[in-house]
Amino acid sequence: MDTAWLNDDEDMAWRAFRRLLTALPARIGRDLAADSGLSSADYEVLSTLSENPERRRALKDLAAKMEWSRSRLSHHASRMEARGLIEKEPDPQDARGCVLRLTDKGFGVLEEAAPHHLASVRSRFLDHLSPEELAVLGALSARIADLAD
Amino acid sequence: MDTAWLNDDEDMAWRAFRRLLTALPARIGRDLAADSGLSSADYEVLSTLSENPERRRALKDLAAKMEWSRSRLSHHASRMEARGLIEKEPDPQDARGCVLRLTDKGFGVLEEAAPHHLASVRSRFLDHLSPEELAVLGALSARIADLAD
Repeated sequence: MDTAWLNDDEDMAWRAFRRLLTALPARIGRDLAADSGLSSADYEVLSTLSENPERRRALKDLAAKMEWSRSRLSHHASRMEARGLIEKEPDPQDARGCVLRLTDKGFGVLEEAAPHHLASVRSRFLDHLSPEELAVLGALSARIADLAD
Repeated sequence: MDTAWLNDDEDMAWRAFRRLLTALPARIGRDLAADSGLSSADYEVLSTLSENPERRRALKDLAAKMEWSRSRLSHHASRMEARGLIEKEPDPQDARGCVLRLTDKGFGVLEEAAPHHLASVRSRFLDHLSPEELAVLGALSARIADLAD
């Protein structure tokens, strides 16, 4: 295979970006656990459900969004159900699937957690970007995330 | 707590960037597994060791770089050692620590994997950035990754 090595600019940017890919989720995840006792996955499940009609979403769609396997998310959802944060219901459109629904308790936990989480996102990330950088980052992120898998 | 909600620009950029944070490592990780039978963690261990003097690095330093606990990396390293990719050695500077050393076999596996991995990084990521975007992304990534934990 013909190797297209990275040039210096590409190498520097890719190294810095990989460091960010490791550091930022770790830092925000630690803040979330310390402030609210939630994992990043818990928060993503709660916040995604809160934005969906009737606070419900098919497990398979949420698994695709999170890039998790259905079985991994199903196990995680069972643990969140045991904590009273969500409920698993049969999926009327898919006999073998299920739908996750945010409970009132889960919504309350999310409401408590959100201001702390936003403060963390600001102090760890947004506060350090100019408006121009934010616009460039948002545009390139959307373009690359939207590429076919 | 006073909640500083995100404005529309911040919200759009943060949502897009979170999607990238999820999608990009998942895609590159799947390519790596399919092309070379390595996990992203395997690749990071091999490539980091290959760049260090005598192809060695203290486990605790590598764990900090990866944002992993020492015990998690120690377990992972034991599995890589069983595959002949690395060796664990006592750390002369730390009686309770250990040093990871890349074996010749591990170096060969990395050499085989690298061209495929770079092709994946290009097709999933670098090919979709202008030189200006790459420069902005590299600069903001380094700045944010370098913030204190």
